[in-house]
Amino acid sequence: MSVAIDAMGGDRAPDALVRGAINAARDHGVEIILVGIEDMLRETLKRQGGSNLPISIYPASQIVDMEESPADSLRHKKDSSIRVAFELVRQGKAKAVVSAGNSGATLATAMVALGRINGVRPAIATLMPTPKKPVAMIDVGANVDCKPIHLLQFGIMGSVFAGELLNNPRPRVGLLSIGEEDTKGNQLVKKAYDLLADSKLNFVGNVEGGEVFKGDVDVVVCDGFVGNICLKLSEGLAKAILTMLKSEIGEGLMADMGLRLKSAFKRFYKIIDYAEYGGAPLLGINGIAIICHGLSASKAVKNAIQLADELAKIELADKLEDSLAKRQDLFKVAQ
Amino acid sequence: MSVAIDAMGGDRAPDALVRGAINAARDHGVEIILVGIEDMLRETLKRQGGSNLPISIYPASQIVDMEESPADSLRHKKDSSIRVAFELVRQGKAKAVVSAGNSGATLATAMVALGRINGVRPAIATLMPTPKKPVAMIDVGANVDCKPIHLLQFGIMGSVFAGELLNNPRPRVGLLSIGEEDTKGNQLVKKAYDLLADSKLNFVGNVEGGEVFKGDVDVVVCDGFVGNICLKLSEGLAKAILTMLKSEIGEGLMADMGLRLKSAFKRFYKIIDYAEYGGAPLLGINGIAIICHGLSASKAVKNAIQLADELAKIELADKLEDSLAKRQDLFKVAQ
Repeated sequence: MSVAIDAMGGDRAPDALVRGAINAARDHGVEIILVGIEDMLRETLKRQGGSNLPISIYPASQIVDMEESPADSLRHKKDSSIRVAFELVRQGKAKAVVSAGNSGATLATAMVALGRINGVRPAIATLMPTPKKPVAMIDVGANVDCKPIHLLQFGIMGSVFAGELLNNPRPRVGLLSIGEEDTKGNQLVKKAYDLLADSKLNFVGNVEGGEVFKGDVDVVVCDGFVGNICLKLSEGLAKAILTMLKSEIGEGLMADMGLRLKSAFKRFYKIIDYAEYGGAPLLGINGIAIICHGLSASKAVKNAIQLADELAKIELADKLEDSLAKRQDLFKVAQ
Repeated sequence: MSVAIDAMGGDRAPDALVRGAINAARDHGVEIILVGIEDMLRETLKRQGGSNLPISIYPASQIVDMEESPADSLRHKKDSSIRVAFELVRQGKAKAVVSAGNSGATLATAMVALGRINGVRPAIATLMPTPKKPVAMIDVGANVDCKPIHLLQFGIMGSVFAGELLNNPRPRVGLLSIGEEDTKGNQLVKKAYDLLADSKLNFVGNVEGGEVFKGDVDVVVCDGFVGNICLKLSEGLAKAILTMLKSEIGEGLMADMGLRLKSAFKRFYKIIDYAEYGGAPLLGINGIAIICHGLSASKAVKNAIQLADELAKIELADKLEDSLAKRQDLFKVAQ
């Protein structure tokens, strides 16, 4: 089955979306449905040389702007490319959605069109690079105000996600806080600690900010406000560090060292580059949806499509539902 | 007047504290009182060659352990080095305290011995390096659960601190959130936004995580839970990036490039090194206190002493009190 692409969403739509789709179809054989303004997509696909690949086009007449309120888009744009892409999944015509469009609207549309897994607050997970291996952080932006039970749910979903994606049968789950002891943290985290400790997850306790990039845990649980700030702070700091380091090394030395240092920097960028990771899955809905950065270039889109394809193949949504269902009793206790 | 050093606090006490004191006294003429076990300090000072400097010793018979509960230390250790150091300030015998000891106990003791500025929640500020200039972040750990009015107070105090320390008469104050619009953020931040907007500070609105290290604002306001995570995440990521970058560059190339690249890395470490910044002032108490990392080496201690000396000279506590007093009306409205 195909991956549906919201081909009109994002700052580089439709070009980067179509190019990413072409590369995913060509290099990895992923079947794709581009959703959006039909003529424009057909022309773009042809111009980019993708006409003979397993890529079809499904019409949607409206576009949700990047700044539009999610509620407005739901009310007034029932034929938007985001909405139609999710409808294709709901109708069983596609197996996943990839969108680089308005992320609030994507979230809201996913909830309305596919619904959430019973009793669960959906959350966005992402992989952060570390010297050892990637670490999954959840939630990085879907829920700004959380209750303890939500952090428990994020821990369960993050554990399934990291377990499947990183081939780890017993992922180590840490709770982001400001000290290792269970008495450290804000009210939310202190209560969530007890829930996670009773969850039968491989819960290793609190992790401090400094531990995240050591790569010793597999899942870092936090509320979406903290997670989003951490994610963006990390991207910003990585850029700032490279700027500072280049200026310290100096242009003369950079030139002397020539290709070798440049290629080291380039490989390094690849490790820390958000684009390489491609997109962040929305976990806890009845289906697969990958949310990409609005600025995503074709490489990020391609990677997001691959991720969507993989998560659909391993039936991640079903596995999340199973794992959550097993722990429904905990949710009742917590509420 | 002298700076009082809690010479028994921290993982490297008393050696790193005494060494830092000697260097601050010798290189910058700061007068210092070392507080702690008299014999031990006299012996250490002599061994390190500091006997002829303007450094005196004031006895305190007890030591607060790094893991001890702040409440216990207050109750049972009235003659601890932390407590006696603050008492010296209270009695007008010293002008500031520097401690690398148990930070919870230092906070609690500061409140008890010196008291807080009228109606204010004290907070810890720190300077983060950016390619442009340092940025003050406040609060980085004193208050894990905040109300909107506290974030307003942090903004006022951060503005005075950055203004004085970075010689900026009108520091730009940003509120850490997950989007630029005033509708973005959690409940706490959305309410604090309105208070800051009405504060007559140079409030520039929300800043996202990615903006912090751009250096476009001078003060970043956040609650102590988020701030502490950001601070430690940044330290951890900086280390991880250097590890990854060195491994990408490879040992062969590092050897080839020899001294020049090594010295670039060294200068770079200096920019991002927490030790260079030395310590974080606790703002909002009736006096000057600098909280250092427990692992602080003598360089960090020396810098913290210099910072304490400078903040005392510019009478920062009085300036904070003035600036806060001017806005007492805002606090009443907010409460």
